[in-house]
Amino acid sequence: MAVGLQAVSSLEAVNGIRIGVCEAGIRYKNRRDLVVFEISENAAVAATFTRNAFCAAPVQVAREHLASNTPRYLLINTGNANAGTGERGYADAQRSCEILAQQTGIASEQVLPFSTGVIGEFLPMEKLESGIGKALSALNADAWVEAAKGIMTTDTLPKGISDQIEIGGAQIQITGICKGAGMIRPNMATMLAFVATDARIDPELLQQCLSEAVDLSFNRITIDSDTSTNDSCVLIATQKAEMPIIDDATSAEYAMFRMAVISHCQRLAQMLVRDGEGATKFMTIEVNSGANLLECEDVAFTVAHSPLVKTAFYASDPNWGRILAAIGRSNVPGLNVDKIDVYLNEVCIVEHGCRASGYTEEQGQNVMNQSEITVRIELRRGDESATVWTTDFSHDYVTINAEYRS
Amino acid sequence: MAVGLQAVSSLEAVNGIRIGVCEAGIRYKNRRDLVVFEISENAAVAATFTRNAFCAAPVQVAREHLASNTPRYLLINTGNANAGTGERGYADAQRSCEILAQQTGIASEQVLPFSTGVIGEFLPMEKLESGIGKALSALNADAWVEAAKGIMTTDTLPKGISDQIEIGGAQIQITGICKGAGMIRPNMATMLAFVATDARIDPELLQQCLSEAVDLSFNRITIDSDTSTNDSCVLIATQKAEMPIIDDATSAEYAMFRMAVISHCQRLAQMLVRDGEGATKFMTIEVNSGANLLECEDVAFTVAHSPLVKTAFYASDPNWGRILAAIGRSNVPGLNVDKIDVYLNEVCIVEHGCRASGYTEEQGQNVMNQSEITVRIELRRGDESATVWTTDFSHDYVTINAEYRS
Repeated sequence: MAVGLQAVSSLEAVNGIRIGVCEAGIRYKNRRDLVVFEISENAAVAATFTRNAFCAAPVQVAREHLASNTPRYLLINTGNANAGTGERGYADAQRSCEILAQQTGIASEQVLPFSTGVIGEFLPMEKLESGIGKALSALNADAWVEAAKGIMTTDTLPKGISDQIEIGGAQIQITGICKGAGMIRPNMATMLAFVATDARIDPELLQQCLSEAVDLSFNRITIDSDTSTNDSCVLIATQKAEMPIIDDATSAEYAMFRMAVISHCQRLAQMLVRDGEGATKFMTIEVNSGANLLECEDVAFTVAHSPLVKTAFYASDPNWGRILAAIGRSNVPGLNVDKIDVYLNEVCIVEHGCRASGYTEEQGQNVMNQSEITVRIELRRGDESATVWTTDFSHDYVTINAEYRS
Repeated sequence: MAVGLQAVSSLEAVNGIRIGVCEAGIRYKNRRDLVVFEISENAAVAATFTRNAFCAAPVQVAREHLASNTPRYLLINTGNANAGTGERGYADAQRSCEILAQQTGIASEQVLPFSTGVIGEFLPMEKLESGIGKALSALNADAWVEAAKGIMTTDTLPKGISDQIEIGGAQIQITGICKGAGMIRPNMATMLAFVATDARIDPELLQQCLSEAVDLSFNRITIDSDTSTNDSCVLIATQKAEMPIIDDATSAEYAMFRMAVISHCQRLAQMLVRDGEGATKFMTIEVNSGANLLECEDVAFTVAHSPLVKTAFYASDPNWGRILAAIGRSNVPGLNVDKIDVYLNEVCIVEHGCRASGYTEEQGQNVMNQSEITVRIELRRGDESATVWTTDFSHDYVTINAEYRS
C-alpha cells in the first residue's frame, strides 16, 4: 500500500557506529525485534522525545540518562511499548539498561532505551536479557538495513536513507532509519528514528540542529492526528570525520550541516507518511503568504487532519468545498476567505474564496488521479509559509485500526 | 444505522407558528426541499450561526436581517448550500427573501434565509420562486413533522422533540426540529435547528438563553471535527402563552425556562449524533474534576476526535491505551497522568494512569458490546466538568464521505 516508497536495500555505514540485531521473541517468534546501537567514545548524542504527557517508561529513562551522561548504547525493542506500566515499567526500563551495561562494562546511565509495541503489558525481562547478549555478539558496522527491519512493527517496508555531503573539504556520512506512521497505533505504536553521522560538531549545536530539524520534519507529518507515547528521534555525531569541529552556529559549515540534517529528516519523515496506515495518496499541504508561521501551520494541519478532506482525496474527488471549509474553521484571527486561492498541483481550483473562473472538474480530476498531490493554499496576508505532509483516509485505515487486536 | 433513534412521528404545534412545506425540485425530484416558517407578530427571535470564517451567503444575510429587523418568516431550502458562491450567491440569498416578502407584504429584512446542500453551485432561482408560492399556500400549524422531513439531507431519520413545561402556572410549549450531523458533509451540508416556544420572554434574554444552550448542546457534539459553513440554530418565542413576561435573568422563571431550553437543545443535539454518518455507537465523553472548564472541554474533544479511539469503539475494543494517549496529547498544562482514572460506563479501566488493578478484559468487553457507552475521565485537578457527545468511526463513514459524489 505504500505510496511511492520502496524497501531500503542498502545503507552506508557510519564510522563509529556498530549495530547488533536479533530475534528475542519479545512478542512474536521468528521476527527481528531487538536492536542495539554501539556508539564510539566521545560521540555527541542529541535526542527529541514525544510531547505526549502520557509518555512511556523508556522515554522517561532515556530523558534522564541523556541528561546525566554521554550515551554509549541505544537499546531498542519492538513488540512491547512498556507504556502505561507504572512503577514496574519504569524499573524494567532501568533494569534493561543495567543488563546491557553489565555485559559491556559501562555505566547503565550510558544506555538509552526505546520501546515500541503493545501498551499496558510488562516487558518480558528474561527474553530481553538473552536477546541483549545475542545482539551484542552480532555487532557490526554494516547492519543498518537489518536494523531498519528490526525496528519495524506495522510498517510494510523498512525505511532508511544514506547521504554524503562535503563540508570544509571533508566527506561526511549521514545515515538514518525510521519506523512507524508518526502516530500511535493500536498495539504496535510509535515513530522511532535513529540518525548517525561521523561529523565533528559541538554537542549543544547538535541538539539545536536536531530540534530544528524535527520541527520541520517529524513534527510536520500527520496520519491521524494522534501522537504516540513513545516517539523518539536520536541524532548521533561520532566525531570521526577528519574535519575542524563545527562549533559556531553562524558559520557556513554549520549552515551546510543543518540543511543536510533537515533534508535527511524530512525525507525520513515523508517515508513514514508514504507508509502510513491505509495510505493511497501522499499529500503535501503547503500554506503560503500567511501573516506568521503559527497560522500557516494551523491552516495546514487543520486541512491535513480533516476527515472530510482525507476521505475526498481517498475518493480522488477534487472537493474544493471541503478544503475551504477546513481552512475556514482553523483558528486564524480575522481570516478573510475572499482573499484565499487554492491550487491542486498547478491547477487553481479556488480564486478569491470561490471556485476559480477557468476551473473545470476535469482539470481537478486529472490531478486527483495521481498518487502524489500538493494542495497549495495562498492566504495573502503576509510572507510566511509552512508545509505539512499527510495521507488520505481509506477503508484500510479503518480496517487496520479497528481489527488490529483481533 | 442510527443509534437508539426513531423517526419522529408527532410534534405539538406552537401557538403563533405556521409551517409550509413543498417539493421545489431544487436538486432532486419528488423530495420535500423547501420549508417556510411563518412567525406571528411581536415574537422574539434569537439565533446562533456557524463560526466558520468561510460562511455561506444565507448565513451572512440572515445575520444582517436579524440585526436590523424582527423576523416574520424563515425560508429554508435543502439541496443547495449557496456557499462558495461569492457576490452572486449573496444577491441570490437577498433575492429569495424579497420574493417571499413580496408575496406576503412584509419587508424583505423580515425574512431569514437558510440553505443546506451542495457547495459551490448557484441557487436555482426560478424553482425557488415557484416553491415559495407553493409553501406559503400550504401554511398550517401542524406541519412540524413534515418540516422535520423537509429539512433532511443525508439524515436517515427526521428528528424533533416536543416538550411541555409549567412556568408560573402557565403551560408552555417547546417544539424543535433539527437536521445534519453537526458538521459539514460533502455535498449536503450543515446542521440546522429550529425551535419555537409560545413563552413570553424578553428578546435579549431569549438570545442569552439560546447562546448558553447552544454552547452546552450543539457545540458539544462532534462527528468528525469538521464545522459546516451553514450551521444555524434559531429559537422563536411567540409570546402567546398567558403568563407574565420573563425579563429578569435572576428570576426562578428564567432559570426554569433556561433549563428547559438547554435540555431541549441537548436532546436535539444528541439526535444529530445518533444519526451521525456511519455511526454504530453513541459515545458520551464526560470529563470531571478538571481545574477549569476549558481543559475539561479540551480533553473531551481530543478523545472524541481521536480517529484511533473512534475506530477502537467501532471494533468494540476496550483499548484504554488509545484513550490515555489521546488525553495525554491534549493541551492541558502540567497534566499529571498518574492521577487520572478512566471509566467505561461503571467499569474502572484506568486507575492512576495505569490499567486498573481489578480490571479484566471481559468487563471492558461487556461494556463495549453495548451501543451506548459513557467514557468518564477523572482528571483530579479541580471541580469543573464537561460532557461531549460523539460517535465511532466506521467503514460506512469512509464509504459515505468518499463515495458521496459518485
